Amino acid sequence: MQVLSVELDDRSYPIYIGNSLLDQPLLVKKHVKASQVLIVTNQTIAPLYLEQTQRMFSDFNCASVILQDGECYKSLETLQLIFDKLLQEKHSRTTTLVALGGGVIGDMTGFAAACYQRGVAFIQIPTTLLAQVDSSVGGKTGVNHPLGKNMIGAFHQPSCVIIDIDTLHTLPDREYRSGLAEIIKYGLINDSVFFNWLYINIEKLLKRESDALAFAIESSCLNKARIVAEDENELGVRAVLNFGHTFGHAIESWQSYRGFLHGEAVAVGSVIASELSFQLGFLSNEENQKIRDIFLRANLPVYAPDNMESSTFIDFMQRDKKVVDGRLRLILLKSIGRAFISEDASLEQIVVAIDRCRNAS
Amino acid sequence: MQVLSVELDDRSYPIYIGNSLLDQPLLVKKHVKASQVLIVTNQTIAPLYLEQTQRMFSDFNCASVILQDGECYKSLETLQLIFDKLLQEKHSRTTTLVALGGGVIGDMTGFAAACYQRGVAFIQIPTTLLAQVDSSVGGKTGVNHPLGKNMIGAFHQPSCVIIDIDTLHTLPDREYRSGLAEIIKYGLINDSVFFNWLYINIEKLLKRESDALAFAIESSCLNKARIVAEDENELGVRAVLNFGHTFGHAIESWQSYRGFLHGEAVAVGSVIASELSFQLGFLSNEENQKIRDIFLRANLPVYAPDNMESSTFIDFMQRDKKVVDGRLRLILLKSIGRAFISEDASLEQIVVAIDRCRNAS
Repeated sequence: MQVLSVELDDRSYPIYIGNSLLDQPLLVKKHVKASQVLIVTNQTIAPLYLEQTQRMFSDFNCASVILQDGECYKSLETLQLIFDKLLQEKHSRTTTLVALGGGVIGDMTGFAAACYQRGVAFIQIPTTLLAQVDSSVGGKTGVNHPLGKNMIGAFHQPSCVIIDIDTLHTLPDREYRSGLAEIIKYGLINDSVFFNWLYINIEKLLKRESDALAFAIESSCLNKARIVAEDENELGVRAVLNFGHTFGHAIESWQSYRGFLHGEAVAVGSVIASELSFQLGFLSNEENQKIRDIFLRANLPVYAPDNMESSTFIDFMQRDKKVVDGRLRLILLKSIGRAFISEDASLEQIVVAIDRCRNAS
Repeated sequence: MQVLSVELDDRSYPIYIGNSLLDQPLLVKKHVKASQVLIVTNQTIAPLYLEQTQRMFSDFNCASVILQDGECYKSLETLQLIFDKLLQEKHSRTTTLVALGGGVIGDMTGFAAACYQRGVAFIQIPTTLLAQVDSSVGGKTGVNHPLGKNMIGAFHQPSCVIIDIDTLHTLPDREYRSGLAEIIKYGLINDSVFFNWLYINIEKLLKRESDALAFAIESSCLNKARIVAEDENELGVRAVLNFGHTFGHAIESWQSYRGFLHGEAVAVGSVIASELSFQLGFLSNEENQKIRDIFLRANLPVYAPDNMESSTFIDFMQRDKKVVDGRLRLILLKSIGRAFISEDASLEQIVVAIDRCRNAS
């Protein structure tokens, strides 16, 4: 087992990464404050891991709530079900929520914990690759609004993150690849050495080779923990983690969260952001091609949706959180491993970049 | 104009108290970050003060949303209307929300500000006595759940609080008296000198005599600011502000927020909590009677609702936020001006205190 640490003063917490962690009740014991625990999971994960997780918390007074699976359920309405359960079971301020599932479960459970009685503790047990390398670390929580993704939320750090790599064995291939998009992102924004390793080893990762996978997860979490420790509330550098996301969120919102998976949308968004970086003279043509290439080899989409107009992109992007007094704030690349925040791109240049990322066939 | 300050490091903010403040645009100018402003108010307040408030923000790009009036609308569903408006108008992270109204509007607007894009700025312009002396100061925000009051919320401090005493001229008598209950509370928990002043001057306050009213509001805000500065997130002493509230919340929840006004429920709750304090040997009989007496003279209810069983009280109280691992944590009085946190009272003793506060006639 590896233990990484997210350093945030009195809100610091450990990330445990390893195999068979769900069989280790001692791991969670010190992170639960009092007797009450509520496990929040979904209909897909419950049959696979709920019993095992309940055993992990068998020393506590442990309830559970099972939500429907999917990004389209990441809403205030679903959140209400968590509050209903907490109140029916009379959970007090010392309760601990446990998020067992992917990013949707983690974000919603974290937000419920942030708001219930104005803030209670929670533990992240991410079971998808995407949640393990991204959403479970860093304290961003929230739900979607029909007009925009993650528009309603809070910064609320977990008490610990438990990444049991074994849970990936049951992850469908498409979701697994969606997680790879966020892993590639860390190479692109912050770590050219890791990107080169990924460029060489992407096929091993696609085959879920155990050693490669463990290394990729650890490297991703390390990169994320470093950036979050520097800027917990995204006042500055943390924004680079949104590379590809403003374009990606626009696609997801436009599709009402029923089309691309999050990582797939981020893959397309990353390709567009790279193209824009190239177009504005920051990124070399060679690196731009290399980026497109690694997403293609990871079997991820690289084209903007056929029937999504560029003006629709702009419209949704202007509603995203990255708008500052009307100007679009985007994350661009100077080179692979060096992302920066930019408000330079004009709407026309953005439209051109989107249109260059369309499937010509 | 008086200016008090709530001292909370980088979250410190001023409370402006005076007449005709809604006619002073310069007051808000320095508290608005960028160009976007959203005024949140309700159907009762809008015809009275919305235009005046819009003029106050006429230098900005100012939208407004008008909600239905009443505690029963303080819900996640109503909150959604604020988010809808913010997103339709494409408000970004630099927007400023303005709460124009009573406690319900203030709590909801503050909570919307806490959650929108994970946190934006807001200004409190309380127009009821209750909001002016209590809910607008201190950063407690939130909405109700059918099973409990203020169960979903956040600590989120405003950028400033603007108390225009003139807005009280349009306040209905019953609501005005409801505010007096919270004013009396400050005397009871923290300030025996202020309580004695209130005991002498309560009739002047009932007549809304200008000087008495200004003094009562300033003294209340000062008491609140002091306690909040000491314990922003209610880890300790701040809990004394909940004197009478655990009983009061039980009544309000049981009535589905359609019976007593908040201050009326707090009045009954304060009388019960005083009776319990007397019964447990803390408070003298004389002071207990004096407390009952001042609420009676303020024309506030002092009896538990006839058809609300004591067991129902207990049931609702156990769902309140003041439960710590199953034990009821109550605020009691050692004497007038000295409140303390107690987990000593047994359920039986609580039931006796409730039953002693029933209308015998």
